[in-house]
Amino acid sequence: MSNNPSFVLRKIEDVVFEERPIPDIKDDEALIAVKKTGICGSDVHYLVHGRIGDFVVENPMILGHESAGIVHKVGSKVTHLKPGDRVAMEPGATCRKCDDCKRGRYELCPDMVFAATPPYDGTLARYYPIPADLCYKLPDHLTLEDGAMMEPLSVGIHSVANVGAVKPSETVVVFGAGPVGLLCMAVARALGASRVIAVDIVPSRLEFAKTYAATDTYLPLAFQEGETRIAYSQRNAKAMMEQLGLEERGARGVNLVVDASGAEVSIQTGIYIAKHGGRFVQVGMGPPEIQIPITNLLVKEIDFKGSFRYGVRPAPFDPGDYPLAIALVAQGRIDLKPLITHRFSFEQAVDAFQTTRAGKSPDGKAVIKAVISGPDVDPADLL
Amino acid sequence: MSNNPSFVLRKIEDVVFEERPIPDIKDDEALIAVKKTGICGSDVHYLVHGRIGDFVVENPMILGHESAGIVHKVGSKVTHLKPGDRVAMEPGATCRKCDDCKRGRYELCPDMVFAATPPYDGTLARYYPIPADLCYKLPDHLTLEDGAMMEPLSVGIHSVANVGAVKPSETVVVFGAGPVGLLCMAVARALGASRVIAVDIVPSRLEFAKTYAATDTYLPLAFQEGETRIAYSQRNAKAMMEQLGLEERGARGVNLVVDASGAEVSIQTGIYIAKHGGRFVQVGMGPPEIQIPITNLLVKEIDFKGSFRYGVRPAPFDPGDYPLAIALVAQGRIDLKPLITHRFSFEQAVDAFQTTRAGKSPDGKAVIKAVISGPDVDPADLL
Amino acid sequence: MSNNPSFVLRKIEDVVFEERPIPDIKDDEALIAVKKTGICGSDVHYLVHGRIGDFVVENPMILGHESAGIVHKVGSKVTHLKPGDRVAMEPGATCRKCDDCKRGRYELCPDMVFAATPPYDGTLARYYPIPADLCYKLPDHLTLEDGAMMEPLSVGIHSVANVGAVKPSETVVVFGAGPVGLLCMAVARALGASRVIAVDIVPSRLEFAKTYAATDTYLPLAFQEGETRIAYSQRNAKAMMEQLGLEERGARGVNLVVDASGAEVSIQTGIYIAKHGGRFVQVGMGPPEIQIPITNLLVKEIDFKGSFRYGVRPAPFDPGDYPLAIALVAQGRIDLKPLITHRFSFEQAVDAFQTTRAGKSPDGKAVIKAVISGPDVDPADLL
Amino acid sequence: MSNNPSFVLRKIEDVVFEERPIPDIKDDEALIAVKKTGICGSDVHYLVHGRIGDFVVENPMILGHESAGIVHKVGSKVTHLKPGDRVAMEPGATCRKCDDCKRGRYELCPDMVFAATPPYDGTLARYYPIPADLCYKLPDHLTLEDGAMMEPLSVGIHSVANVGAVKPSETVVVFGAGPVGLLCMAVARALGASRVIAVDIVPSRLEFAKTYAATDTYLPLAFQEGETRIAYSQRNAKAMMEQLGLEERGARGVNLVVDASGAEVSIQTGIYIAKHGGRFVQVGMGPPEIQIPITNLLVKEIDFKGSFRYGVRPAPFDPGDYPLAIALVAQGRIDLKPLITHRFSFEQAVDAFQTTRAGKSPDGKAVIKAVISGPDVDPADLL
Repeated sequence: MSNNPSFVLRKIEDVVFEERPIPDIKDDEALIAVKKTGICGSDVHYLVHGRIGDFVVENPMILGHESAGIVHKVGSKVTHLKPGDRVAMEPGATCRKCDDCKRGRYELCPDMVFAATPPYDGTLARYYPIPADLCYKLPDHLTLEDGAMMEPLSVGIHSVANVGAVKPSETVVVFGAGPVGLLCMAVARALGASRVIAVDIVPSRLEFAKTYAATDTYLPLAFQEGETRIAYSQRNAKAMMEQLGLEERGARGVNLVVDASGAEVSIQTGIYIAKHGGRFVQVGMGPPEIQIPITNLLVKEIDFKGSFRYGVRPAPFDPGDYPLAIALVAQGRIDLKPLITHRFSFEQAVDAFQTTRAGKSPDGKAVIKAVISGPDVDPADLL
Repeated sequence: MSNNPSFVLRKIEDVVFEERPIPDIKDDEALIAVKKTGICGSDVHYLVHGRIGDFVVENPMILGHESAGIVHKVGSKVTHLKPGDRVAMEPGATCRKCDDCKRGRYELCPDMVFAATPPYDGTLARYYPIPADLCYKLPDHLTLEDGAMMEPLSVGIHSVANVGAVKPSETVVVFGAGPVGLLCMAVARALGASRVIAVDIVPSRLEFAKTYAATDTYLPLAFQEGETRIAYSQRNAKAMMEQLGLEERGARGVNLVVDASGAEVSIQTGIYIAKHGGRFVQVGMGPPEIQIPITNLLVKEIDFKGSFRYGVRPAPFDPGDYPLAIALVAQGRIDLKPLITHRFSFEQAVDAFQTTRAGKSPDGKAVIKAVISGPDVDPADLL
Repeated sequence: MSNNPSFVLRKIEDVVFEERPIPDIKDDEALIAVKKTGICGSDVHYLVHGRIGDFVVENPMILGHESAGIVHKVGSKVTHLKPGDRVAMEPGATCRKCDDCKRGRYELCPDMVFAATPPYDGTLARYYPIPADLCYKLPDHLTLEDGAMMEPLSVGIHSVANVGAVKPSETVVVFGAGPVGLLCMAVARALGASRVIAVDIVPSRLEFAKTYAATDTYLPLAFQEGETRIAYSQRNAKAMMEQLGLEERGARGVNLVVDASGAEVSIQTGIYIAKHGGRFVQVGMGPPEIQIPITNLLVKEIDFKGSFRYGVRPAPFDPGDYPLAIALVAQGRIDLKPLITHRFSFEQAVDAFQTTRAGKSPDGKAVIKAVISGPDVDPADLL
Repeated sequence: MSNNPSFVLRKIEDVVFEERPIPDIKDDEALIAVKKTGICGSDVHYLVHGRIGDFVVENPMILGHESAGIVHKVGSKVTHLKPGDRVAMEPGATCRKCDDCKRGRYELCPDMVFAATPPYDGTLARYYPIPADLCYKLPDHLTLEDGAMMEPLSVGIHSVANVGAVKPSETVVVFGAGPVGLLCMAVARALGASRVIAVDIVPSRLEFAKTYAATDTYLPLAFQEGETRIAYSQRNAKAMMEQLGLEERGARGVNLVVDASGAEVSIQTGIYIAKHGGRFVQVGMGPPEIQIPITNLLVKEIDFKGSFRYGVRPAPFDPGDYPLAIALVAQGRIDLKPLITHRFSFEQAVDAFQTTRAGKSPDGKAVIKAVISGPDVDPADLL
């Protein structure tokens, strides 16, 4: 039955609404009526460039992967969900059999089926089929918009809590105050960091970060003519440490640096400001190769780690990134509402992408996150 | 110069005030004018029994080890402290050279010099000499009473955060709602536990726990005649799980059990309620041998750990238990004030011990923690 | 097609050979022609008692779970195996979707389908169907008997390497010199333990342990009349430490105790001899409740853990217990051959069980491990 | 008493023998008669350049820090050593009071007093004073040359076992087959790595590595004209993976890369060949800034860590790097003898440095490690 309107990327700069068939589900899957979907930078990137690294859009693909919805029907083996349940949807289905899946590193699974990563369809449709264990019921006091935001929040959880292993009372610096950076700050604060320092080159973003989750902010120095990037970064790090009273060791040291910017000078500055024995997490994507001050990293024994998507935290620690995201919001330790700046109906999906791409709406309001509502559901679909 | 009034335990049930000499300090030590000292169960135990395990009071010993004060003078190599600084005092000085000191487990140091553990004098005196690195400056908005409470709070930190490795969103059960149990609950809550369940046989203590840091409480079943302890504990665990909606696995499981009671049936019940893969921390002292359901522990792969005093958390994680205690109070995540129920002057030290021993003051008010103020300092002492 | 002779336990003390149908396999499964199966204590226990804890034999069940065989056919999605491959068979299939499976603790999966644990059939048959990822190809220089022994070896790996986290140069004590205890010793030695001390009440087992993997042995003291178990264990621990030059701390301390005996006095003695900060792993099953010296455990901050079956080690560490077992044998660090003391044809399965149960064969030779060969395969089965 | 002949670096290219006073020792120190000292690249670097990074030779400094000797006398508080004991000498004395010392990361101590790192004197003298806990008694079957080699071996232990957390059955690649690289290979092999792959641009070094500890070797491709370093490294990585049958994931993946070369293309190649979820340890010093393929590192979630000197491994794991080095040699798992290629008397110290600097002796024999014997001791020195 073709009753599944979908927002499809056909090729670069070419999106259309299509009617697709309502997907079948397997015994252990659920069919979700998608209700809220946030737009991610990667969605826009596929629209504009048709690829991210080795992932190339070769066939039409439904966009969207930051979603929440209402369970429409469930397979015969599903016991923890029932139609009508409101759920956050984890968008990556894994093979469950490879070494990485078995050892608690499923984000590395080579056979990942990830929504809106070619060649797999995304969630910007009326219905989306998903393994039932990737649906997380939302507590009553959380909204479906909160549910959609669990996806980028899980990226922040993975970076700061799982890979970054933040501990209470630590000092954390986050480079980049876009959606992921802001969520990294929120996670650090929620998990007890004493100082959360936001760094961004846009003053208004720092202002927002300060009202949202940062305890301190830093606006990087301007470049000087003829200066190398490394020389700039050293100078910038020194200025930042002086301005904020940071030290290379001890209680005033930076325990954890998270780069959510991808910018070379951010990464360099971040290594210079990390304390001896500190940790660095790279979550932002930028140029594929950059220069780092490796001797500085070595003598300080910095632990420099990549953070990709989300998964579970190493045993014996429960739970996974998605459940922790939901728990922190449910406890009131993280508030996602201030981040949703723009809302669109399903029919306005093109506008939503245009607005996200522009970074602001026609009224001049800056975009942090734009959310698209799902199309209405026809009760007849269940028949 | 003898100008150091001290509260001395001479032998069982025999305490006196004595004038002692003002202690000399070494290059790397500080002399602290002790201002606030909480009374611990161990102080009372030495008073009543003259020993704890192998530690026997054979010579007169100054009591007290939960203290904060004001720096009176510092040795020549001390740079991070100056006279007038308000500090929390960590009461155990270690050798710094043994394997345990070097590998970040200094609480196990065999050459520990611990205040008011025989044969070493405690802090209930005008002055106390201490290695400077064991003095932690108090933020301005914290009181010296807060500072004294950092000692029992560090016991809670060590149990719940360090040994117990609590993680946000976990479910934690604490047996025993005395001072240490309450502080364990406060730490669990501060570090993001979603549920903190207090268990105690005294209903009024549960009521207090609920107002303080517990999200739920449980009053154990009554014993039945002829029932073995194990049979009781199984029945009690089953009732507790039903009443609180706990399960053996998954998101409704108990991730961490902390026993601050020392009671055999608490420990047994605690093992039965822990989830598969859960952790158990024993911090309460009780009978030296108890029966445990070991097959249940084995098939659930419970990690059962002893927690003794406090120290640092394993690298790469900063900081130690004392700094974390101060940070959590400074951030407002833990409030120590409700726990201080009784206050005494130095001259009333005997009353303070009597009240703690009785468990309530003559007006019937239950004791959680009694604090003794230090004697005034004579400015001439510096000369 | 009924062409699958199987060795079936019908009820207590009642075993028969039955022809069963050749099992179907799913897309991701393999059908294995079982070639070698070791007899485990649990197999004998089901034969004699009809149950282990809550697992009760209510319907006829094929016995056997320590097996290796030759791939007979594979499902359509299986790529890493082909007919003719020689494989070790991990006998527990998990749900792959629960929290425990996802976080790298699959041994805790509540929906485990484990060979010869009621109600699931075991491997003592011509053919056994198994998820393909649970088949581990054997290097050419390993035998199928080696392959069958990977199951008990994985129990030892899990206890000593995974749960016990043994490190090179440590001192390890293993209580119980039966098959699992001996394999724990072999793992400790293979992974670099400097001292591996075997404890058993049977002198001939100690002698074998010494020739096999132990560097030292200890024969426990005799009980004295009227002595409590705790008093005995304290006395025994003291004697053991003196005899072997063990100390409570430092380089002569016992880092890791593994109890593969299940005996209360072993566990008590083990706690007393563990060094401050040491670890204890309980892998042996014995009485369901035992008494432990908990104050001793607490003040030494012992980490006491249950070890159940096998799984993967926590990320970021590869690989799982089964692959590590195979690697250590392939490298020549562990020799499994000395442990196989008795061999039987499939038709002699009753004798094999009788011999294992008796602990020795009619010629008086003590049993460590008896292995049953699989029935021949009829080439027509593939049609 | 001036009876302590010493080999002193006065300034660049200016070394002399001087008579220095016999050092006094403190209560907790030992005076060692230095017997064997290996020459390290850093010694030569100070001779040639007068500095390493921020460490500048401003005053005359005794060279040497890889030493073993015989205890000459001990301070009053030293109990584990006595005159005549043969000991390996750990050359870095720490403050024992800073956060890093307390938490088991003493290699990061800012107040480290390290032999032959300016402004502190080294060990190339008749006598050297040292904190007693930094002296490790040598087992009888180890030589004093073995003892001197414990210093570079500890660098390898720290990199591979501590920072790198190598596990049995892993695949390890080591870039650089100089002394540190060879010792890293030896550690990986001793700790159970299944494959240890040596990479070096000098074929004869690869040949030696293969006879010593490597299971495989790889000779990097030649550069092509006009090729960028990154392009070269990608090409080189691909060729290396094909030649050695390495894969990006799973059991044929590279778990751990250790760079002991410091070369940019080694580090780049190393990142490209590491498996998803793999670890990378940087121990070799080279250019202070280099380019890395950060997107590759990110999506593979590589854990990239600096390794500096040596220390202890995180609790609960004993022991420190030095004790583990001694244990592995004592067990016969590592043989240090093949690495000592050249031997000199104290009087030949200038020749020893010249030979190390040249990389070969006049007879053409390549230097791996040159060792200088200590001057004889005059029994009268004890008076």
